[in-house]
Amino acid sequence: MIDRLVEAIRSTEAPICVGLDPQMGFLPEELKENAFREYGETLEGAAEAIWQFNKAIIDATYDLIPAVKPQIAMYEMYGIEGLKAFAKTVAYCQEMGLIVIGDVKRGDIGSTSAAYAAAHLGEVTVGSQTVAPFGEDICTVNPYLGSDGVQPFIKECAAHSKGIFVLVKTSNPSSGEFQDRLAADDDGQTRPLYELVGKKVDEWASDPALIGKSGYSEVGAVVGATYPQMGETLRRIMPKSYILVPGYGAQGGTGKDLVPFFDKDGLGAIVNSSRGIIAAYKKEPYAERFGSAYADAAREAVLDMKKDIAQAIGL
Amino acid sequence: MIDRLVEAIRSTEAPICVGLDPQMGFLPEELKENAFREYGETLEGAAEAIWQFNKAIIDATYDLIPAVKPQIAMYEMYGIEGLKAFAKTVAYCQEMGLIVIGDVKRGDIGSTSAAYAAAHLGEVTVGSQTVAPFGEDICTVNPYLGSDGVQPFIKECAAHSKGIFVLVKTSNPSSGEFQDRLAADDDGQTRPLYELVGKKVDEWASDPALIGKSGYSEVGAVVGATYPQMGETLRRIMPKSYILVPGYGAQGGTGKDLVPFFDKDGLGAIVNSSRGIIAAYKKEPYAERFGSAYADAAREAVLDMKKDIAQAIGL
Repeated sequence: MIDRLVEAIRSTEAPICVGLDPQMGFLPEELKENAFREYGETLEGAAEAIWQFNKAIIDATYDLIPAVKPQIAMYEMYGIEGLKAFAKTVAYCQEMGLIVIGDVKRGDIGSTSAAYAAAHLGEVTVGSQTVAPFGEDICTVNPYLGSDGVQPFIKECAAHSKGIFVLVKTSNPSSGEFQDRLAADDDGQTRPLYELVGKKVDEWASDPALIGKSGYSEVGAVVGATYPQMGETLRRIMPKSYILVPGYGAQGGTGKDLVPFFDKDGLGAIVNSSRGIIAAYKKEPYAERFGSAYADAAREAVLDMKKDIAQAIGL
Repeated sequence: MIDRLVEAIRSTEAPICVGLDPQMGFLPEELKENAFREYGETLEGAAEAIWQFNKAIIDATYDLIPAVKPQIAMYEMYGIEGLKAFAKTVAYCQEMGLIVIGDVKRGDIGSTSAAYAAAHLGEVTVGSQTVAPFGEDICTVNPYLGSDGVQPFIKECAAHSKGIFVLVKTSNPSSGEFQDRLAADDDGQTRPLYELVGKKVDEWASDPALIGKSGYSEVGAVVGATYPQMGETLRRIMPKSYILVPGYGAQGGTGKDLVPFFDKDGLGAIVNSSRGIIAAYKKEPYAERFGSAYADAAREAVLDMKKDIAQAIGL
């Protein structure tokens, strides 16, 4: 999967993924009203509105970008119906040629992580049949439980050519509470916990069975755009890992902040923007130009983001 | 919710929850065949088998126990259909008077954690309606992202009288990889990371709005039975928090190991057993006595576990 991702980033010249995190507040009133008219003010109505919104965003941007990152929480909050919209979104994006990064942040003890890995990257066996339940191409993983919680995901990467991004340093304000703690490393040195996690990611990523022709591994990492200095260190610690960079745009990261996450060749990182793209029509400069044409505004916001990043990293 | 839990533990004299983690391998062949005959070898067939299995276990044990802990991964791996079986299980357990601990281990940046918290503990608004999507009573939370990832869950606890158990020290073999690292505390001392997380849990738990009449807080912690010495320390660090203790039975924890997790009054902890109960019929001494009568074997295993724990903690 990593080679497909690198190739798609090269061909679109866009190290970008669009975060499909469709909060109800982002959706135009008319779209919601239509869905509620057909399905009622129900979870089904909410799910239909989300799906229609996503579809229009995808149709307007799929030719510009390599990947999307649906955040499953925004679907899970509408229960079973919301998760149906998630599954439908994953399948439609793949039909349109996009790589789907399921932002699921799962992670548990070994046998339970194996169930999550099967759900999102692998297959399950039912009697004589095998089925891929959600079938994302890549998913995000929480490392707090250590290697035996991550290995089942890595196993699916190897078996089905899938990828993972392991949380190393997250983009949120309180991420430092535990992640930045100075901790004892195996060599007797003291390093921030995120560096220790980064070193472990590099160890996982270095298995030759996971390294693609691009030189990158199926095992990548999440490092927030809001922490560019830590990004620089982590880029060095994890040379084989692609970095998924959230926090650009709405969370405060700018193009300039992204430079340390990339390699010298302009590869090695993929930057996510969610509300900065999908809710662009609600903010200037897009609001005035596009009114309620949210999909057109999203396309324009993708083009602007592409330019911003290309300028910053000198592509 | 914590007062309801304490009261239910008192009245059943069972500080026990049954882990509803129905792996396909635990299910009797006949039960699966019946479900597959009706729904095919499909995700729907698997979900039906899981639901039938759960229902029989619940019917055979609900009068002995205060709570159940369905592990959502085991449902999520069967996609939408599996998650329908999860929702059905949650609702049925609540109908039977049981407290449901959703073992979901969710955790993300603030706005995303808010979506997860709404999904599992709270309500969502759709137009003029509000709906509780999954509606568990308590859920487990991953702390790696820090306070802003946990606070949205705490907010739901306060608003809807719900509870959470925050992962502090997990039961799996590699949990020490990050959780045991000696890390710098705010007071300049060096402590294992799990102690730092425990101290933070105590801080969250101490909000008077979260403390019940029992003296315990809606904010509890997960500490594995497999690490009794750490349990002793953590019991002291988090005096207001109930401890959910996984790892008893199949993972190696014994009655004796559980003592440090309890307060002097025999409260303060609830011990989970999953396969030790629901798959008891596959193992001696139950296999010979019960044959394929898995629900009866589960009841007997609950009675034995009750005895084992009562003896160990001197109830």
